[in-house]
Amino acid sequence: MPTEHTITLRVRYPEVDAMGFLHHSRFFQYFEMGRVELLRSHGVSYADLERQGILFVVVRVECRYKAPARYDEELTLLTRVVKQTHVRIDHTYELRRGSTLLAEGSTTIACVDREGNLRQIPDFSSSAPQ
Amino acid sequence: MPTEHTITLRVRYPEVDAMGFLHHSRFFQYFEMGRVELLRSHGVSYADLERQGILFVVVRVECRYKAPARYDEELTLLTRVVKQTHVRIDHTYELRRGSTLLAEGSTTIACVDREGNLRQIPDFSSSAPQ
Amino acid sequence: MPTEHTITLRVRYPEVDAMGFLHHSRFFQYFEMGRVELLRSHGVSYADLERQGILFVVVRVECRYKAPARYDEELTLLTRVVKQTHVRIDHTYELRRGSTLLAEGSTTIACVDREGNLRQIPDFSSSAPQ
Amino acid sequence: MPTEHTITLRVRYPEVDAMGFLHHSRFFQYFEMGRVELLRSHGVSYADLERQGILFVVVRVECRYKAPARYDEELTLLTRVVKQTHVRIDHTYELRRGSTLLAEGSTTIACVDREGNLRQIPDFSSSAPQ
Repeated sequence: MPTEHTITLRVRYPEVDAMGFLHHSRFFQYFEMGRVELLRSHGVSYADLERQGILFVVVRVECRYKAPARYDEELTLLTRVVKQTHVRIDHTYELRRGSTLLAEGSTTIACVDREGNLRQIPDFSSSAPQ
Repeated sequence: MPTEHTITLRVRYPEVDAMGFLHHSRFFQYFEMGRVELLRSHGVSYADLERQGILFVVVRVECRYKAPARYDEELTLLTRVVKQTHVRIDHTYELRRGSTLLAEGSTTIACVDREGNLRQIPDFSSSAPQ
Repeated sequence: MPTEHTITLRVRYPEVDAMGFLHHSRFFQYFEMGRVELLRSHGVSYADLERQGILFVVVRVECRYKAPARYDEELTLLTRVVKQTHVRIDHTYELRRGSTLLAEGSTTIACVDREGNLRQIPDFSSSAPQ
Repeated sequence: MPTEHTITLRVRYPEVDAMGFLHHSRFFQYFEMGRVELLRSHGVSYADLERQGILFVVVRVECRYKAPARYDEELTLLTRVVKQTHVRIDHTYELRRGSTLLAEGSTTIACVDREGNLRQIPDFSSSAPQ
């Protein structure tokens, strides 16, 4: 029952700033892609969940930046589930270029319905949680 | 019955690219702000329209770039309605830094309902159209 | 000597707007990725060109939107060189979901040095131009 | 010697996601604007600093989200300097809609030269530091 997943991505031109570095805000967009692909690796589509009214909102994020990422570099992102309750999931993230650690992050997401009320995270069948 | 409007805006850090220039895709985000503020100058909130199921989708855009815009520069954007039918509006845009013309653009937007079907543009009371 | 190239990409969550559609400004970011990958398919890295002081700036863009793209959809983008002079290249783009055409675009880019002066496009060895 | 500053900003259309909420990654772009305007309130332009080779890189960020922000809402952001060493500054942020707290954040930025080496933060004359 894997609760981690690695994706590869390439830094796009409009994602870097005037210093030529991936903007610090963009790392959280990559982390979100990591969560979505971890879920997909379990056969679950986040787009489908949304259509069913099962939404995840981000309640806390944190990131420590170790080294810059530049345009067109190919990076790997490891996403891990480190804690899960009935309504919340904690993930951690490691973004690397080759073996160089660029950033470490963590987030807490909560499951809500369309009205924004907390709701129980569905059992993703026999598969591991997001 | 004014059908043009000027706004002032400042280029944000993550909007410029590695060359230090406002990314060419961002100009269309500024043009959209110009349309929204032109509408607001007539007492109409686009956010309210959306809540009523009156949506505008972009069907065509065009832009010619004359000179770059850089981080933190203060720019003015002139937005004009140049043509309107029952379901479509054509706008033009001039983005300037002082008297220097940076870009000229044009767009066509169409009025649709939530299902994406064309619908008649509402009469914005006695005020001019978007 | 191929002068066209197709890439596959997936719509990311923060790229869609409140209507759930890929924002019209983002299409130009995809077109840019198409140009970069067309170049890479000829063994040329745009990041390397920039480091050598060979820059491409966008001088004109145009796009016609036919149908919306939504979060998480997998799209294909066909990028073509349709005209080239000593200093300018015209590209066209077709963005599709399966066989459905979502948008058709065209751009003109110009080759400049670090000071922004027009310069001749280098001969990309025996390979086709960007 | 004020070390806090409040700005007002309006949520732009392409900044909200498919849920209609300001995307969680965007808050850090607002926080950056808060830092830049705090600095400007002391008569210092960050764009000028960059031209002089005095850069600030983000080494740590954190944010807790309390309530969503929606398209076109007018928000206020309070930015505070809470700690400063020779090379680092810690800021905190409070983003509100009226009296409702939407998010609380904190960041650490470090002063570097063009090569990315730590350098001493310049004395911003008699004014307070960024």
